[in-house]
Amino acid sequence: MKMYRIRAGFREGQPGQLPWGLHISGGHKSFHMIPKISLNTLKIVETLLVSNTGKARCMSTGMQKGSDFFFRQLFDTVSSTYTYLLGDMKTREAVLIDPVLEHAERDAALIKELGFKLLYAMNTHMHADHITGTGKLKSLIPGSKSVIGKSSGAKADLHIVDGDLVCFGSYQLLATATPGHTNGCLTYICHDQSIAFTGDTLLIRGCGRTDFQEGSPESLYKSVHTKIFTLPDHYTLYPAHDYKGQTATTVGEEKKYNPRLTKPLKEFVHIMETLNLPYPKMIDKAVPANRVCGIY
Amino acid sequence: MKMYRIRAGFREGQPGQLPWGLHISGGHKSFHMIPKISLNTLKIVETLLVSNTGKARCMSTGMQKGSDFFFRQLFDTVSSTYTYLLGDMKTREAVLIDPVLEHAERDAALIKELGFKLLYAMNTHMHADHITGTGKLKSLIPGSKSVIGKSSGAKADLHIVDGDLVCFGSYQLLATATPGHTNGCLTYICHDQSIAFTGDTLLIRGCGRTDFQEGSPESLYKSVHTKIFTLPDHYTLYPAHDYKGQTATTVGEEKKYNPRLTKPLKEFVHIMETLNLPYPKMIDKAVPANRVCGIY
Repeated sequence: MKMYRIRAGFREGQPGQLPWGLHISGGHKSFHMIPKISLNTLKIVETLLVSNTGKARCMSTGMQKGSDFFFRQLFDTVSSTYTYLLGDMKTREAVLIDPVLEHAERDAALIKELGFKLLYAMNTHMHADHITGTGKLKSLIPGSKSVIGKSSGAKADLHIVDGDLVCFGSYQLLATATPGHTNGCLTYICHDQSIAFTGDTLLIRGCGRTDFQEGSPESLYKSVHTKIFTLPDHYTLYPAHDYKGQTATTVGEEKKYNPRLTKPLKEFVHIMETLNLPYPKMIDKAVPANRVCGIY
Repeated sequence: MKMYRIRAGFREGQPGQLPWGLHISGGHKSFHMIPKISLNTLKIVETLLVSNTGKARCMSTGMQKGSDFFFRQLFDTVSSTYTYLLGDMKTREAVLIDPVLEHAERDAALIKELGFKLLYAMNTHMHADHITGTGKLKSLIPGSKSVIGKSSGAKADLHIVDGDLVCFGSYQLLATATPGHTNGCLTYICHDQSIAFTGDTLLIRGCGRTDFQEGSPESLYKSVHTKIFTLPDHYTLYPAHDYKGQTATTVGEEKKYNPRLTKPLKEFVHIMETLNLPYPKMIDKAVPANRVCGIY
């Protein structure tokens, strides 16, 4: 049994008022989010999911073939940021995760070529190393909305919290609070595709730094171990950055090979506190701009 | 009906001598290639494939979920080269396409971590912009073999030609001659996964230059139009390079939006002949080195 089936079931059964206290506003142009799903409910769904995945696909990078899920990874060589375009090829609704200002036109052109309707330009957190493209994308693609975690303190059309679902067509991203790099860091999980977008919380064989903004190595460690490493091993993880030419990883790989997060908490904190990294060169420009969606 | 089923069928039916004049040498350590499949046979297989794909998955980037196919894209920021690790998660056999010398250790470490046995370090062609990592990988991973197209004129353990199949576990790459950027350019097609590795023949919204080595715009145009654009629209294409942060495309997208190859031949030739590109800065170092697998 897949997430898709569970969701489709309750959607079709009672389109107006759904069981479990869920409410969908309906219509293509409205904001398809389901706030305030209780954690118990999510736990039940997760248990169903994990116990029914059958033979796990380990360490692979992939999407559900034959489904209508669209996935495209994009890259900014200056800040080494990954941007992700996700879409439903049937309804043509799409979302863009962590767009970069300088590539907003590239991204908007691609979305247009592919015939997608961008619903949300989302951030995993308030970045300090590049200016977000969400504001510019809103001006390039009228009707699209900017989305960020409420705890980020940044301006956006929509502020989301742990447990919110961001829907595009038949697909959903589950916003999962993973503070530590910043207070407002969210990991977006798409259970239907066994993938998650970890922002700067978990990088490939690394993690985001914790020495500025509201950084806390203890919080980051707890976030990774309770929210990401608890996902099935075969889930593919897509980070916001990579500096060594890597594009993806899996839960299983990071649980085994992450040089920092496989250590005990005390050792991890010591590693993070003695990194002696240079002051982030873009932070004084990027953070004020990102507080207002990159100004546009 | 998928390629996998067709192949599995004849493999299981007559493991020694197969129908259609095919021969598989058998065993994990031997070289699983099937040379000299006639073009007519391939046409039959392709027709079966295309007519049986059912509802095509358009413009998506993905692998067969639930299968044992492993895919990982890797990047070299200096030459903007993409390297691809493909594997069979059941048999653990793997191949690496277009490795870069400076990342041979990164790639070998990843292959080891993932528990793969590298059979072949392959090139799509003799590169002029970076030194291949195939030679170094052979020394890092004893038992692996270097592979390149016979027409490249480069040294390698195995020289392949149009129609050859490179097998790893249950999967196959069909070597398809696509000259034009160089004489020896091969596109590797994995019909089972609806993906192809186009080298420098077709880039995302572009193509490789044709003004050095044995470059010929007429040949490149013919190669793309007869060997790549004839694949189903939903096939995902992975190039050897991208310079704008793009990671993949599809046959459908390039047929519609490639700014060069959608033009008539005469116009395409004119475009390629008037690009006025600078002399490739690495060519005098890379080509002699790549003639001998990057020397190792």
